[in-house]
Amino acid sequence: MSDELLRQLVDVLKMGPTSANQSPARIIFVKSLEAKKRLEPHLSEGNRAKTMSAPVCAIIGYDMKFYDHLPKLFPHADAKSWFEGKPEEVVETSAFRNGSLQGAYFIIAARALGLDTGPMSGFDNAAVDREFFAGTSVKSNFLCSLGYGDPSVLFPRSPRFAFDEMAKII
Amino acid sequence: MSDELLRQLVDVLKMGPTSANQSPARIIFVKSLEAKKRLEPHLSEGNRAKTMSAPVCAIIGYDMKFYDHLPKLFPHADAKSWFEGKPEEVVETSAFRNGSLQGAYFIIAARALGLDTGPMSGFDNAAVDREFFAGTSVKSNFLCSLGYGDPSVLFPRSPRFAFDEMAKII
Repeated sequence: MSDELLRQLVDVLKMGPTSANQSPARIIFVKSLEAKKRLEPHLSEGNRAKTMSAPVCAIIGYDMKFYDHLPKLFPHADAKSWFEGKPEEVVETSAFRNGSLQGAYFIIAARALGLDTGPMSGFDNAAVDREFFAGTSVKSNFLCSLGYGDPSVLFPRSPRFAFDEMAKII
Repeated sequence: MSDELLRQLVDVLKMGPTSANQSPARIIFVKSLEAKKRLEPHLSEGNRAKTMSAPVCAIIGYDMKFYDHLPKLFPHADAKSWFEGKPEEVVETSAFRNGSLQGAYFIIAARALGLDTGPMSGFDNAAVDREFFAGTSVKSNFLCSLGYGDPSVLFPRSPRFAFDEMAKII
């Protein structure tokens, strides 16, 4: 998988909206064998073999200090002051919500570029943070393998709710 | 805005993936004037006029008891036992992460159906929960107005990061 395709993926996903354009997602594309070996021990048992055999596994994180970039990303208002010095819970809620939105944009953009995706939350977040984000303000959210799946071993789509089970109009 | 279009929107967004297909998002489409009046006092000052003038404002929530539906949604494994009785923080993290993914699918699906979207986190979550989700296990995540924007008053897109500011390949 070319680095150019990964760059295209980021160029598409970053266009999706986030609150006050805070864009908290930070992504490490784990591509080399050496980097994959650092990731492997922190994966749930059932996620190891498939992750190691995928061309790339992305660690999708979110930056708890996203607000440092708001003077650049949201130049028409003092949005940095809405978050800086606020309780960690307020910052975390916003970073996690908007980082997850960007995680969904990642999945949709990857599929639009012809890739298959394997998103996973079965791993040790704290250990991955120590291994890949030490010394930064970034926390891991979820992982997403990228590649080209073999239709013969893919699961069929699981059932979905009917409208009335998940939504109503009032 | 027809109810049929809102049903189409749900039919598209629900196809996006979530962890163990947990599908925690619950949506209330606030469409009638009566329902909008119930929402209005809980919005940030700056979000009131634009929300009241939009044809519909969706309250996108997530169900903290999403696991009750896993025997139906994820029939090939006992995924309910992965969450039932677990610490609230574990359940909340999963519901909030995956409910936010579905919130992003909502935005993308709405735009794919030709709608403009106004996602907002500027409102009193606890008050909205009391007003619209009392007696349920659902918590509000964010709001999203739906309609057809007037290009003459839309903001231009704000700046985005360059690749190296938000991602790296290792």
